[in-house]
Amino acid sequence: MKYRHPDDGLALHTDYYQINMAQAYWEDNIHEKKAVFEVFFRKLPFGNGYAVFAGLERVVQYLENFRFTESDIEYLRELGEFSEGFLNYLKGLRFTGTVRSMREGEIVFAGEPIMRIEAPLIQAQIIETAILNIINYQTLIATKASRIKQVIGDELAMEFGTRRAQELDAAIWGTRAAYIGGFEATSNVRAGKLFGIPVAGTHSHSMVQAYRDEYEAFRSYALRNKNCVFLVDTYDTLKSGIPNAIRVAKEFGDKINFVGIRLDSGDLAYLSKEARKMLDEAGFHKTKIYASSDLDEYTILHLKSQGAKIDAWGIGTKLITAYDQPALGAVYKMAAIEEDGKFVDTIKISSNPEKVTTPGLKKVYRIISKTTKKAVGDYIAMEWERPEKEKTLKLFHPTHTYICKYVSNFEIYDLHHEIFKDGKLVYSLPPLKEIQNFVKSNLQMFWEEYKRSLNPEHYPVDLSQACWDNRMNNIKKIKQQFS
Amino acid sequence: MKYRHPDDGLALHTDYYQINMAQAYWEDNIHEKKAVFEVFFRKLPFGNGYAVFAGLERVVQYLENFRFTESDIEYLRELGEFSEGFLNYLKGLRFTGTVRSMREGEIVFAGEPIMRIEAPLIQAQIIETAILNIINYQTLIATKASRIKQVIGDELAMEFGTRRAQELDAAIWGTRAAYIGGFEATSNVRAGKLFGIPVAGTHSHSMVQAYRDEYEAFRSYALRNKNCVFLVDTYDTLKSGIPNAIRVAKEFGDKINFVGIRLDSGDLAYLSKEARKMLDEAGFHKTKIYASSDLDEYTILHLKSQGAKIDAWGIGTKLITAYDQPALGAVYKMAAIEEDGKFVDTIKISSNPEKVTTPGLKKVYRIISKTTKKAVGDYIAMEWERPEKEKTLKLFHPTHTYICKYVSNFEIYDLHHEIFKDGKLVYSLPPLKEIQNFVKSNLQMFWEEYKRSLNPEHYPVDLSQACWDNRMNNIKKIKQQFS
Repeated sequence: MKYRHPDDGLALHTDYYQINMAQAYWEDNIHEKKAVFEVFFRKLPFGNGYAVFAGLERVVQYLENFRFTESDIEYLRELGEFSEGFLNYLKGLRFTGTVRSMREGEIVFAGEPIMRIEAPLIQAQIIETAILNIINYQTLIATKASRIKQVIGDELAMEFGTRRAQELDAAIWGTRAAYIGGFEATSNVRAGKLFGIPVAGTHSHSMVQAYRDEYEAFRSYALRNKNCVFLVDTYDTLKSGIPNAIRVAKEFGDKINFVGIRLDSGDLAYLSKEARKMLDEAGFHKTKIYASSDLDEYTILHLKSQGAKIDAWGIGTKLITAYDQPALGAVYKMAAIEEDGKFVDTIKISSNPEKVTTPGLKKVYRIISKTTKKAVGDYIAMEWERPEKEKTLKLFHPTHTYICKYVSNFEIYDLHHEIFKDGKLVYSLPPLKEIQNFVKSNLQMFWEEYKRSLNPEHYPVDLSQACWDNRMNNIKKIKQQFS
Repeated sequence: MKYRHPDDGLALHTDYYQINMAQAYWEDNIHEKKAVFEVFFRKLPFGNGYAVFAGLERVVQYLENFRFTESDIEYLRELGEFSEGFLNYLKGLRFTGTVRSMREGEIVFAGEPIMRIEAPLIQAQIIETAILNIINYQTLIATKASRIKQVIGDELAMEFGTRRAQELDAAIWGTRAAYIGGFEATSNVRAGKLFGIPVAGTHSHSMVQAYRDEYEAFRSYALRNKNCVFLVDTYDTLKSGIPNAIRVAKEFGDKINFVGIRLDSGDLAYLSKEARKMLDEAGFHKTKIYASSDLDEYTILHLKSQGAKIDAWGIGTKLITAYDQPALGAVYKMAAIEEDGKFVDTIKISSNPEKVTTPGLKKVYRIISKTTKKAVGDYIAMEWERPEKEKTLKLFHPTHTYICKYVSNFEIYDLHHEIFKDGKLVYSLPPLKEIQNFVKSNLQMFWEEYKRSLNPEHYPVDLSQACWDNRMNNIKKIKQQFS
């Protein structure tokens, strides 16, 4: 099979036009001009009030290993569109840029730069595609997981989606993102190994079929597993599954922990209430009821409102594919480019007003009220501004500019951290558990109104006056050319 | 980072319960009993009338390389739940089963086995998760691509979705599936290299920004590319983009092929018609209009009905994520297990009638009318039956059994091919182009009524009388236990 190159790498994991443009830049000798690109999305997914950024670790891996391999160059040569000089240049190409980024687990909103890449134009261009591919998916899933976890609350949330994930990487990196968003465990053993996520799982219907008798299957399972969760719906949940689970638990007594039963089909509200009664009557008050069956934040909310007695939730398809909105539309836009050793603004105009970019070198800050300790809003300012030295900040809506408010008595901090400096990794990637905790503590900074799953309040992300004026001037300049 | 194991493999790309069950089977010494599992889905995606099977090549790769590595075993040991004897057994485990499968590109319907795995129970169990992960996604995308291609017709269909794909594997294997479904090109260079798919791409808005002048950017692009497709919407499509493209094309004359312009935003119906006029007036009658901007089969159908003058279609997000239904629910169910050297039926009962499985060793056939050369229906029969020797076949609806018809003067062929025989690959994987052609010729066997995108006719997938009787007997036996 042609794809078994021993030196397969990810530099070609990009759109073809990036390589076309790279060659044009190289031939015009503008390829090493520095350019600044920003990653941001225009709309929060799922109607949620916030998103959880994930994907940085994978981006770091990608950039650290960025190189065209021999077989990559050979393939490009075969296409017949690229000069030997250019191909030779690609051979030696490494990432030498500077990356400032939000940390994984940061709470992020529409319209603010998640990541800022300052690199030679040719590099910044080629890496666009993979960076978006990674950040779009992982941020989407971390956000979906956080949204589901808000509804689940303190009960156990487990990721069970591998078989429905969009190919292998999505299963692995998706469950890592789900863990960041607040899930406690995964069914994917490889993700457990790679990332240290706790693994969870009981047995399947086929085990009951393999023993051709539910009671025998449960007995065998109990003989091999100290902690038992029996799947009770292979034949008949109430008439067969639960009675067999109770019978085995009684027979084994202290030899096992009768941790739980799992319901995987049927009316979960009704079955869980009946199951609770049967378990309680048999004296198994601590035995938990696990549920899985096409669950998401909506079904969970409804099950809870119907008084379902479920203690642990296994979420598959709807989480791992972000079923109700399977793509985040993060984009990567040029904000500035070097001219004669200085950065000049660049802008993309569009007939869709929300697609017009905000030009120039900028920073993004979070403003925290000293009184309430809650986040008041995010603030995008020109890099030269020093909002931390201001006593009062004016926040105004970036579209409806008459809506404004003044903030004082605040703390403000830069949401970006330096990850790469001139191609060198200068950031220490935190352990995964720390990222999960970071999300939890981060979320405490936000009022409940921003976190509810239906019709959350809009959290303000505003431009500084200087940033807004600069944007308007750039738009005006372009418009004058075509009037 | 913990996940940089030099010996990372895919055997652990499975659900934790599979390993739990594997240990129980091993300790009870039933792990080498042969079991038969079938892969099938219960409902066609997108309301489509058919699906296109994809994923076999990746499944073959996976099974050929199936082994637990040192670091896999070490990880399982650390979990503290598995005996050394069992871990030692896993170390030597290889896939030794027999796989019968539809070929990639086969047209497949709900309720029929795509693949049948006959293997020692422990193997058949562990490989379930990865097989479903692969087949679910690739079949979903091949089907979506075929559905979109039906609407596009003979015009060029290009896959542009990498940046919105669900992580890296989805971008690569998704575009391969899209090619199988009928797409002609991809933007993903790595997919071009790995699979030999033609790559396509022009330039992006950032190139125009990099030159800070649209005309200069187009000139530079034309200097480096013989075949030019200019992206014309960075500033103003009609006032700037198209006039600049025409100006450059006229200046370069025969030095370039002015292949096309690309529209990426705004009202594509209106803009494409205006663009066509402008190009025609300038004498560029053969220059094509490319469009991309959140397209799918619905928007394409509408654009065509509005007389849009679009010649080539770039489809991203909606294809690569199967946006309107991002998961196919294919399952993997046990049909039989060895007892005393003979296979006995196994069944899974459910309170959801469509979740009750069809037990036993079966084959799936396609019946072709000798008169029309069109497919009449698919026919699931017990393995011992010989439908090819019958003069007349009775087809009846598997739920509404009174609906039936008799077929004679037919050809019938087995949809499954032997892929692995006792662990040995006995099938030669065809080149990708051949798979794409196979889909095309396959589709010609089906009446248009099954292929339309809205409310297609239901194609019959029926059980033989023997198969139906056997299913009913199995259900009755189980039911008697709980009445």
